[in-house]
Formats: sequence, C-alpha cells, structure tokens
Amino acid sequence: MTAAERERAQRVESVLPALRAAAEQADASAAFPASHVSLLREAGLLGLVVPEKFGGLGGTLRDLAAATFAMGTACPSTALAYFFHNTSASRGLLPLEAIDAGLFDEAEIPVVRAFAEKVLTRMGEGVWLANFASESVKTSGANITIATTARKVDGGWILNGEKSFGCATGVADYYLTSAKLEGYDTAEGLATFFVPRDAAGVSVRAPWDGLGMRATANNGIRLDDVFVADDEALGVPKAFTKMLTMSRGSFVGNQLAIAAVYTGCAQRVYDEILTATTTRRFADTGESIASSPVHQVLFGEMTRDLRTAYLWLRYQLAVETAEVPFKPKQEVFTQWRLGKGAVTEACFRVAVGALKAGGTSAASMTGVAGRAVRDLAMGLVMTFPAERGMLEVARIVTDAHANELFATAPSEVAR
Amino acid sequence: MTAAERERAQRVESVLPALRAAAEQADASAAFPASHVSLLREAGLLGLVVPEKFGGLGGTLRDLAAATFAMGTACPSTALAYFFHNTSASRGLLPLEAIDAGLFDEAEIPVVRAFAEKVLTRMGEGVWLANFASESVKTSGANITIATTARKVDGGWILNGEKSFGCATGVADYYLTSAKLEGYDTAEGLATFFVPRDAAGVSVRAPWDGLGMRATANNGIRLDDVFVADDEALGVPKAFTKMLTMSRGSFVGNQLAIAAVYTGCAQRVYDEILTATTTRRFADTGESIASSPVHQVLFGEMTRDLRTAYLWLRYQLAVETAEVPFKPKQEVFTQWRLGKGAVTEACFRVAVGALKAGGTSAASMTGVAGRAVRDLAMGLVMTFPAERGMLEVARIVTDAHANELFATAPSEVAR
Amino acid sequence: MTAAERERAQRVESVLPALRAAAEQADASAAFPASHVSLLREAGLLGLVVPEKFGGLGGTLRDLAAATFAMGTACPSTALAYFFHNTSASRGLLPLEAIDAGLFDEAEIPVVRAFAEKVLTRMGEGVWLANFASESVKTSGANITIATTARKVDGGWILNGEKSFGCATGVADYYLTSAKLEGYDTAEGLATFFVPRDAAGVSVRAPWDGLGMRATANNGIRLDDVFVADDEALGVPKAFTKMLTMSRGSFVGNQLAIAAVYTGCAQRVYDEILTATTTRRFADTGESIASSPVHQVLFGEMTRDLRTAYLWLRYQLAVETAEVPFKPKQEVFTQWRLGKGAVTEACFRVAVGALKAGGTSAASMTGVAGRAVRDLAMGLVMTFPAERGMLEVARIVTDAHANELFATAPSEVAR
Amino acid sequence: MTAAERERAQRVESVLPALRAAAEQADASAAFPASHVSLLREAGLLGLVVPEKFGGLGGTLRDLAAATFAMGTACPSTALAYFFHNTSASRGLLPLEAIDAGLFDEAEIPVVRAFAEKVLTRMGEGVWLANFASESVKTSGANITIATTARKVDGGWILNGEKSFGCATGVADYYLTSAKLEGYDTAEGLATFFVPRDAAGVSVRAPWDGLGMRATANNGIRLDDVFVADDEALGVPKAFTKMLTMSRGSFVGNQLAIAAVYTGCAQRVYDEILTATTTRRFADTGESIASSPVHQVLFGEMTRDLRTAYLWLRYQLAVETAEVPFKPKQEVFTQWRLGKGAVTEACFRVAVGALKAGGTSAASMTGVAGRAVRDLAMGLVMTFPAERGMLEVARIVTDAHANELFATAPSEVAR
Repeated sequence: MTAAERERAQRVESVLPALRAAAEQADASAAFPASHVSLLREAGLLGLVVPEKFGGLGGTLRDLAAATFAMGTACPSTALAYFFHNTSASRGLLPLEAIDAGLFDEAEIPVVRAFAEKVLTRMGEGVWLANFASESVKTSGANITIATTARKVDGGWILNGEKSFGCATGVADYYLTSAKLEGYDTAEGLATFFVPRDAAGVSVRAPWDGLGMRATANNGIRLDDVFVADDEALGVPKAFTKMLTMSRGSFVGNQLAIAAVYTGCAQRVYDEILTATTTRRFADTGESIASSPVHQVLFGEMTRDLRTAYLWLRYQLAVETAEVPFKPKQEVFTQWRLGKGAVTEACFRVAVGALKAGGTSAASMTGVAGRAVRDLAMGLVMTFPAERGMLEVARIVTDAHANELFATAPSEVAR
Repeated sequence: MTAAERERAQRVESVLPALRAAAEQADASAAFPASHVSLLREAGLLGLVVPEKFGGLGGTLRDLAAATFAMGTACPSTALAYFFHNTSASRGLLPLEAIDAGLFDEAEIPVVRAFAEKVLTRMGEGVWLANFASESVKTSGANITIATTARKVDGGWILNGEKSFGCATGVADYYLTSAKLEGYDTAEGLATFFVPRDAAGVSVRAPWDGLGMRATANNGIRLDDVFVADDEALGVPKAFTKMLTMSRGSFVGNQLAIAAVYTGCAQRVYDEILTATTTRRFADTGESIASSPVHQVLFGEMTRDLRTAYLWLRYQLAVETAEVPFKPKQEVFTQWRLGKGAVTEACFRVAVGALKAGGTSAASMTGVAGRAVRDLAMGLVMTFPAERGMLEVARIVTDAHANELFATAPSEVAR
Repeated sequence: MTAAERERAQRVESVLPALRAAAEQADASAAFPASHVSLLREAGLLGLVVPEKFGGLGGTLRDLAAATFAMGTACPSTALAYFFHNTSASRGLLPLEAIDAGLFDEAEIPVVRAFAEKVLTRMGEGVWLANFASESVKTSGANITIATTARKVDGGWILNGEKSFGCATGVADYYLTSAKLEGYDTAEGLATFFVPRDAAGVSVRAPWDGLGMRATANNGIRLDDVFVADDEALGVPKAFTKMLTMSRGSFVGNQLAIAAVYTGCAQRVYDEILTATTTRRFADTGESIASSPVHQVLFGEMTRDLRTAYLWLRYQLAVETAEVPFKPKQEVFTQWRLGKGAVTEACFRVAVGALKAGGTSAASMTGVAGRAVRDLAMGLVMTFPAERGMLEVARIVTDAHANELFATAPSEVAR
Repeated sequence: MTAAERERAQRVESVLPALRAAAEQADASAAFPASHVSLLREAGLLGLVVPEKFGGLGGTLRDLAAATFAMGTACPSTALAYFFHNTSASRGLLPLEAIDAGLFDEAEIPVVRAFAEKVLTRMGEGVWLANFASESVKTSGANITIATTARKVDGGWILNGEKSFGCATGVADYYLTSAKLEGYDTAEGLATFFVPRDAAGVSVRAPWDGLGMRATANNGIRLDDVFVADDEALGVPKAFTKMLTMSRGSFVGNQLAIAAVYTGCAQRVYDEILTATTTRRFADTGESIASSPVHQVLFGEMTRDLRTAYLWLRYQLAVETAEVPFKPKQEVFTQWRLGKGAVTEACFRVAVGALKAGGTSAASMTGVAGRAVRDLAMGLVMTFPAERGMLEVARIVTDAHANELFATAPSEVAR
C-alpha cells in the first residue's frame, strides 16, 4: 500500500462504524439508509476513483476493491450500491482513454470529452451516479439486452423504457442510463444519458423485496418520454463500443470490486462464527464448541473456501492493475468469467458453513449468519451465475484452440 | 396405497389450498396462522397416526410422510409444526409396545398405560400436542441435553427450566415436555409431562425471527415452578429409555417425516421454476429460457438432486415401515444419520439451483425460490447437520468392524 | 429372494473363489482368463437369464444384477464381460415379446421367432455370445453410431466394418453383431448377425490396454467381407426398433446390471480398506488407524457414497422389475440416465476415498485400492459419463414440461 | 523472469524432449530411466538451487517450481524424483542460515558448516542425493515417524532401519538419510547421514509397483548395521530442529515444488485433450467433438480446476519467495496445508475430466489421460491428503482464535 492508498483507506475505515451500526436495520427494512449518501460524500468517497484533477481522490481499482471489501464486512448492501456508483467512473475514464488512443474523429472528440469530464467532475464533487443498464428482456445471446430507446428531438433526446434493477433508485442524484438510439440494432447504437432523479417522466418501480442485499434501493425505474438535453447525453454512435475496447478487463472494468463485496461479507461471517464458537463451551467438558469434530470439519472447509475467494480476487486484481499488463484482455476477461463464479460460490459456502456451525440458534433472519446466507445468495445470481461463466470460458478455450489449430494448418500446407 | 391411505391422503389434500394461500403471509409475518389449528383438527388430521380405537385415523408413518410431504409443497412451516405434533404419538404408542414386550412390571403398567392412552386419546380428539425437548445447553457427547428439572411434590410435580425451540409455542393445547427427575443424571431419569399452554408459570420466550420455517411459532417456553398433576405425567423411571428401545428407527421414530417436509418444499420450488422458465421465452429466438445451456446444466443437476432426496427418503420409509423388518435397528439408525443429511443437502441444492435458474428477478424474499432457500437452509441445521451424521456413521462402521474382527479372533485362536 | 433365486445365487457364489483368485493376474496381464468360460458354462451361468424352456436357468434382471454385483466384488473384468454376454438375451427375449404384441406381420414372424429362439437356445446351451455394437465414428446426435454394413448376397449377407469395443473378443463363441442394411439410413435398417469367432474375414483388433477393466478382452474386431448365412441373421427391417419398444428400461434393458458391477467393486474396496485400517494400529496410542479424524471423515463420506450407489441401483431395479410396472418407460429411461452417472460417480469416490485411507502404501497398481480406482474410472466413461446423462434429462424435463403446458393450452382456449 | 532465471529455464527446456520421449516406456516398465541422471547432471540441473559458490546454478525456489512444473508436463515421475533430489539442498542451506542466526555454539559451528557445505558442494558437482525420511510406522500425532536408529561407534555411526519410500532408490549416488540418535525420543535427536548407494549393509527393498509416478525408483531401502563415518554425518543434537526454524515455509521448505509437478501434469493432459477433441469431428455435423454440450461442461470445469491449481501454487510461491516476507511462518505453513490439498484435488479433477472428455478410446493405461489419472491419484495421497490439511488448519484457526481471545481477556480485566 502506498501512502496515498493508506490515506484513502482511512477514509473508508472512518465510515465503517456507521455502516455497521445501520446494517441490521437497513436489511430488516429493506431501505438504503439515506444518511449514508452524505456520510460517503463528506468522506470524499464518492470521488474515490476519480482523478484528482477532476476533484477526486485519485484512487485506482485497488482502492475500489479495498473499499468495497471493507464496506462488505460492515454492510454488504451499502458496499454494493457504492460499487455501482463507482462503476460510473468508467463512463468518464474510458472515453478519455479512447480519445487518446485515436478512436474518435475530430468532430466527435469535443462532445465525447465534454461528457466524460462531466461524469468525472460530478463524481469528484460528490454527486451520486447510479448506473442503470439491466432490463428484464432476455435474449439468448447476450447477458444484458437494452430495449430502452432514445429518440432525437430538438435540443436533446426523449427516453422511453424500463430499467429492472439498479442500486440507489430514488437515492442517487442522477441515473446514468443506457438506451439505444433510434435506427440501431447493435451495441454500436448504445448511448448514455444523465437522468436526474426527479426528472419529469421518471418513476420508481415498486420496491424490490430482495432475498439479500436488501438495502440497496434496487427498485429500478420507468422512463416515460423523459427529456434529456444534448449536453447531458453521449449520443455519439459507437462511443460505447469504442469505450469498451479500452477496458482492461471485463465490460467496463472494475467488475472485480463486486466480488470484493462478497468476500468482505464472507470474511465477516467467518470471523463472527469463529469468535462465537471458540468462546462458547460445552457444559460437560469445558472445551469450546469449535473443537468438536463437526466444527473442525466445518472450519477446515470454511477456511479453504474463504482463501479460495481471496486467491481469485487477488489474482484478478493483479491482472487488471499491474503497471505493465501481463495478460491479454481476452485472458483477463476469461479469468473473470471463472473468477466471479468461483468467488461467489466460495463465499456462499462460507456462509452456509457458518450457518451450520452456529446451529439453529444462529439461523435467524437478523443474525450475521442468516444475513450472510441471504446476501451471498444474491452473489450467486447477480451479473451471472458460475455456471454461465464456466460455459462461456469453455466456448472460448475450445474455439480459440480450434482457431489456433486451423491458423497453423495453411502454413503447413504451403510448405 | 391402500384405500384407507387414499382416504387419509384426501383429507390432507383438502387442507392444502388453505395452507398454500396463507404461506407467503405466514412467512412474512413469522406467525403460525391460528386458523390452521382448527383447519387440521376439523379434517381429523391431528389424529392421523393415532389408532382408530383412540379416536384417530389409524395412519402409519407412510401416511405421516405423505402428509408432511404434501404440506411441504404448500407451506413448509405448517408441515414442520404438524410433523412435531405427530411425533407426540410416539409417547403413546411406544410405551404401549413396551408394555406388550414385558418391559414394565405389574406396578408400573397401569401408570404407563394410562399416560400413553391419554396422549393418544387427546390426539384422537383433536388436541394439538407440541413436543418440547430442545434446550440451549450443549454437551459434547449428546445431540440433546435436558436441564429442565421435575421435583416431586404432593399430588404432582414442579417443573423448572427453559425449552429453546419447539414448534407451536402459544398455539398447541399442551406442551408435551421432557424433564429430568430429581436425583437422576442419565436418560433413565427423563420423564414426560403435559404442560397446558396457559398453565401458571409458563411463559413464552421472545419471538424467534428464523431465517426460514418462520411460521412455526418456534419461540420455546420458560417454566417457572409449573405444577403438573400426577395423572398428567409419566414419571416412572426408565420409562423413557424403555420406550426408545421399541422404536424401529432413530430416537422416537418418525424422524423421516421431517425429511419429507423438506422434499415437498424442494419439489415445489422445482416445479415452479420449471414452469417459469419453460413458459418465459427469449425475445430473439422464441426459445424457452429453460433451453439455454446454463439452464440445461441447472435443470440436470436439480433433477438429480431432487431424485437423490427421494431415494433416501423412500428407502428410509421402506426400512422403517416394512411389515417384516429387513434391517436391524442399528442399521435403520445409521441409514437415517446419513439420510437426513443427504436429503437436506440435496433439497437445499435444488433451492439454490432454482434461485440461479430464476435469476435476479426471482431472488426475492417472498418468491418461491427465495422462500425455499430460506426454509431449506433451516433443514441444513435442524436436528443435526449432514457433517455430524457422517461422522457418527464413520464411528459406527469403524467401531463395529473393529469389534467384529476382535470377536472373531478368539474363536480362531481356540481352534 | 425366492428359492429359485437363491439356487441361482448359489451357482454364482460357487464361481467367486476362482474369479477372485485370478483377478489380480488377469488385471496385470490384461487377459481374460480362458478358463472362466468353462467355469461359468459349467455352472450353468451362461444361461442365467434364459427361460427354462430354452435350456436356461430362468433368472430375471434381479438375478443378473445380483450376479454381476457379486462377481464385481471378485473380478470386475469378468463381471463386465459376463454382463455383456447376458445382454445378448434381449436379442431373443424382446423380439418374442414384440411378436406377442403383434408388431410383426405373418410373413416376418417365423423368421423373427427362429432367430430369437436361436439366440436363447444357444445361450441356454452354454454358448458365449459377445454383444458388439460400439464403433468409433461419433455423431453429435446419438450415443452409438453404426457404420458397419450388411450387403445381401445369395444365401446370406456380407458384412464389412469395425467394432471398436466389445468384451470377450477372441473368447466368445459368437459375436452378436449389429450392422446396417444397404439402403437404410436410420435405426430401422439395423440388423443382427451371428458372427462365429473364427469366421473367415474376422480379425481381432490390436489389444486394448485399458486403464481398468483390463481383463475383458475388449479389443474389438474388423469384419472384411464376412459372410453370414441367412438363418444366422435377423435381417427383417425395423425388427431392431420394434424390439426396442418392448424394453422396459433403457435401450435393450438390463443396463442397470452394469452399474451393479461397479457397485460390487466399490463394496469390495470399501470392505478391504475398512479391515485394513481397523486392524492396523498407531504405534503410540494403540488406536486403529481408522479412528483418526482424517479416516473418520473419509469413512463418513465413503459410507454415504456407497449407500448412494445402492439407492440408485436398488430403485432402478424396482422400476424395471416390478411385476406391475409403476413408472412409464420414459421415466424408467430418465431415471437410468441419471442413475448410471450417480452410481459410477459414487463408486469412483469410494475408490478414491479408499486410496486416501490406505495411504501411499496402498497406492499400488496391483492392490485392491489401486485396481478399484482404475476399474471404477472406466465406469465414469463407459456407456456415457454422468454429465451426458444429466444434460439428456434436463432436455427431457424441460421439453416435456413445455409440451405439457402447450398441450394444455388449446383445451383451455376451447372452453 | 530475470535473465539468470531465463538461462536456467533454458537448461530445463533442453532436457524436456528426452524426458517426454522416455515417459511412456518409463511408466510402463516402472523404471526410472538410468540415462536421465547424466542428462540432468550434464545440463547442470542437479545443482539448480545450489549457490554458485558451491558450484551450483544459484537458482531459488522460483526456479525449482518452474523446473518441476516443466518436467511435470513431460514426465511426472522424473519431475518427482528430481524434486526430492532438490529438497536435499535444504540440508545444506538451512543449517548455514541457522549458523548465521546464532543458533549453534562455537563448538558446533565447524561440524555443522562442514556437513552443510558438503551437501551443497556435492549437489553442485552433480551428485544425486536422494532424500529418505518416510518410514512405515505410523503414530497418531505426526505425519512422519522415524524409527531408524544411529548408534555411535568409533569413528562413525551404525545405522539400522528401513525407509519405506524414497525416490531414486538404486539410482542416487547417496541416500541422505534421517535417523534418531540413541537416547533421544524427540525430533531433537534426529540426525542426517550420507549413505552411499552401494554401502555394505544397504539393500534395496522389493520394487514398488505404484499406481502412478511409477518411474521414480521409489522402492526404499533397508539398513542393516550400515557404518557411516563421522564426517559423513550431522550428528549434532538439535541440529535438525534448529534447521527447521529457518525454513520460511513448511518443513524444510520447497514443498510447493511438488505441487508444481502435479500442475505440470494437469496442464499437459488438459492441452492434449483440448487438441484431441478440437481436431476430432462429428461425422454428421462436422463440428468438433469439443463443441458438444457435454464437452463444454467438462472443459468449463477443467479450466476452472486447472486455474484453481495455479492460483494456490502461485500464491504459495509468492509467500515463500517474496524478498520481504509478508506473511508469518505460521501463516505460510497454514496456506500450504490447504494449498497442497487444493492443488492436488484440482489437478486430479482435471485428469478425470480429461478421461471423460476422451471417452473410452482414451481410457487406456498408456495414453496421456490414463497416465495422468494414475500419476495425479498419487498426488492425492503423497505427503498428506487434502482432508488432513483441512483438519490441521481447522485446529490451527480455532486454537489460535481461542488463544487470542484468552490473551486479550486479562488486559481487559486489568483496565
């Protein structure tokens, strides 16, 4: 850790007690604690990964993962909502990188730059930007399908559609919203819009009564003829796909920080159950409950599982943040498709192990074990399940190998 | 199924719609629906496994397992509470068998018979008998440790203690309560008492906010100088241990019917998610969601897991109910120690698979998948976890084998 | 067990010592012990499942599974080869059932009956009939693809092709061989031929140096212009597919008896390692090796796994042999697609557990644990792996459910 | 990789073709190829981890792991034997470190230094030093129990005992042998001796017909009144235990390089089966076999498992070789107790997956898949099984936590 990282980590530390204190009630009421917005804003954390020149703290993905991990030990819901806010930074950073890489032409550059800098400047100033992509339409070929439309009108755009999930609904200052431009059928037509929380035509969907991660304000929104002015939109065609090519990892990058949320939650429940079972004792022998053969088996497995999560997380962080990249992007992506599933399955097993180790008395809705089971069950399904990641990777390795073998063939034939 | 079994099954069928209708609200409010008591009573189901001569329906463990399975598909909490009520029948049936087997002397027989017949007659009349054994003290050697005491006084007994769990707290007409007689240190001193729900000195513990199986009224009670009259007690020393020897399976028998509750719950969530994913379609291809490679993997595993649960359950039923027992009691016990864990782990995997198959939109607190994950997580910890069962069985098979080998040795030497 | 079953079981018992004695050398030399043919013939076991009127012992699938299980405890290779011999009986029994069911017309009946009775009579007389289907061509849609051809010539047929696997190569008296009739592209054109071991044009493929199940003489054969006379062939078109419809279970039935081979092997290695570790003792404490915490975990898991194998096997036997079938054929098939994988995976885990329990000194090529690992590894891949079975079942349950829902739709609309 | 590491890696690369060419025959005949000794010696590799001043190549554990991984892809047996040779270096390096750390007194230092330098000098000169510790006596408390004795006589020592396993029996120039000094009962009395391969009284045990890793000459030896001169022994009491305290990781360090052997083997079988199934095609569709749904599931899991092995291995290497140690020794040890099991289980699953992906035709004794299953099955049992590692770690974490909580208690009380 550098000194700057340490300073940023202390800001994270400073908010943990409040997060921890509010966590149980937040879960019980399924409500994102409104006071957390100002708490995080005043700690400067809304600009954690925003460069200093835009008013941020200049942190990197390392800081973000450390922050979401730490918050995950205190209140996984807040950690998750905070994670999604931070992913918005990619909508500023990646376009700027794409400009530097020469992917935009002269006419496009000022528009792209202005929008990108607006994203970063707002975050640096402490604006909460929810990041809304998920919709409920499913297609067989894609993880996320965008049906929300943007129609050009004088001075701006008219948006219509529904976003099925998105942390910080009703909480964020703006919803950073993806929609497809009229006349486009592919990802090239995806555009990004700042939709103010209280804009006309924006309505909050019914509360989402989640199994876990309940205090994330994850309702989603409906957009009915919502007008967004030109300078609050990035409507340049292909801007989205060009931006994606700059990401070092999966999608817009940063994804691994969501795995850090789960790992933080797993570490917490592990610590709690370890303390509980090593301090509680059998009435007859005086030995700790944790010393029983059953508990030894459970702790052996939980320790292995928890370390498995760390190994995947730590390595993903290494491949995505090494100063000199040592893995091609395709490989970083592949690692993540496996890693996300590996981390979440391992963390969920830790929670289930803790539940067993705690016995019926710990198996309550509100206790640490019960909450971890529910929060980490969400990890299994959010983004994509482990099974999808594995099947995608299988396709990649078998196709790549087939191509490689084919690529070799002609040269051999030519000889 | 015999005609009589079919008739009893129809009684069970008749209550399912009401159970199903109330299930979600019961779970949300963590309250056992008060109307279920009269519903089940009027259907005659409180006497399901009570012989007809005591006013019951004359069902066997086969009926009980079928009933708890069916109720498990509708409302697992009710199924669980109903299961525990039925286990009370053993406190009547097993002592009568022990009398027939000559385990009691002449002086004891009338007392034992009177108590046993009272248990059965009450159940036959539609009285709900909660069965309270669990306490919170743990010892390293036993699954359940009884610290509640019974002191003899004129005309009856004074009970003091606390029962940490027990379905139908505040709901049952009587709590059938275990306590140890003064002067005894072993299971030989365990006695059984009818404690009326509203007896002086009985207080209900704070509500238990369970992760799952929430509508079981599982609070438990405190007993402060509660008086129980002689004819409402079975205080004959060793009656408890003599009774246990008559059980064909584990403990007081019937345990497998709790596994049927979980299996019913797993079947339900499997059916629901199968319907949901085969009827919902991809927007692009028109194929069902269930046809995706990920869903195929999930359904392959869920189908295997569900059938695994049935196999263990069905075989346990066979060994415990075969007219001519074909396995020694020790073997029936061993099978159950593995089977309970195997069923509950398999059912829990079905629920987790359903959660994944349903995606984030199904991952709610109130949906079938979310409820099944929570209800079946309780299955992992209730009674004992799979890991404990396996370690116990390992001890049994290795010790038995060692004994067997030793037992053989001398005879060989003698030759 | 009926008296007749007991009598047949005693015949099986009588050959086990010889099988057991030869097993290790048979495995080491990868050679089917030639003397086993006469051993089994003289015990009458080559006609085990042949009706008495054709000279057999009149056993059923129950006898076959019991026999292959018992032989699996002694010499899994012999058990496997014997299993395949017995599957030949279906080629006699199923056509006779198809005749009774009216599936053949008057002209076909005599030909079909003559062939069917020849199969059964030969088996009843003690002729070993290897059953050769597997070929090395793979197609994406089928488990087995037949490329071997049969061309009609005067007085018989000319066969050409290669059978990649088949127990008892060079050992059986006849190879019962599948080939497709000229002019047919589907299973309707599959015909069956008696190919004498030493017929002109038959050559034995290079020895198959299997990882396990080595003493099965599994080389396979090449057929180069092999002539088979008309009365040694069943060349009636559709006879094969009509026969398959009569099978109660998967394919030609009897498949579950192969799972009994693996289960026998697993039971044996379990017993051996239990004896070894309960008799060997720690030098310091005098306790058995089996009592160590690690061994307790291993034995807990091995016991569960072994019983899992029995549960699937026993239930499959029940659904395939119940006097009154209680499951439709599709369901029997589905159960087997899961069951074959479940049994073999469980048995393999038992072997791996035994290997661990035995430590390095048991990890030899020739010991029981090492052989079981190798023999049971074959079980994972033979016929089909567990993963294939699960994916097939997933397809069945999701398609069936989709059909069912569709099938219901019109009737509702019609109301 | 530094330039020096690259140069050393090239030496390793140079021997791989010969290793690969000999591997199958070596496995079949269960014989360590005699020519490999001179091959490795001439490549300078017998001194790979010996400092340059003693004539070695100056490599570190990083080089060793890279070497055993690479050799593992070519011939796992040779890789394993080579690994054990290299572990001998610790018997030189650790005592020298212990001297520097002030653990020996003035009188001891010259003796210890002379012996340590002799170990290193010999290795640097190309002498093969087998490292013999394992014995067949088991005690409940220790992984390895030494019963071999060393009795002081004039000018040297007399050794008696039996070493049950040890690579390079009959191949190594010397057996570096542990024995306990007369009069000692604990590890403090362990001493180390150079036993020349052909010394009087040394006999080679019967060949070890291993399930896998067969070409390692793993017979072990008997020592009957073998005389070893004083200057060929390190008989200083406590030298062994003092040396162990200098190790950064488990035992004498370097252990992780054995996990690299297995990982190399797993990578090889993965590559081979990927090539085989992506080049072989279905006869009907022309698609590669690898594209089938079953193969996609298998490759997804194999890829995850292989990467799991790398993660544990890579991290273990990091904690043991980081210039500035970032984990305390206890933690390095704990990580390894889990890591050894995690790597070997993952690698074994890769081999079993490859076996399934290859089908029956690949399931032969000699093919890459069959050999990998056997070689990697040995990995499950060598040193210790995963289950032991997990139980040890469970003990460590629960005891440490209990201690920690107790340690805190008094200080809190004191406030």
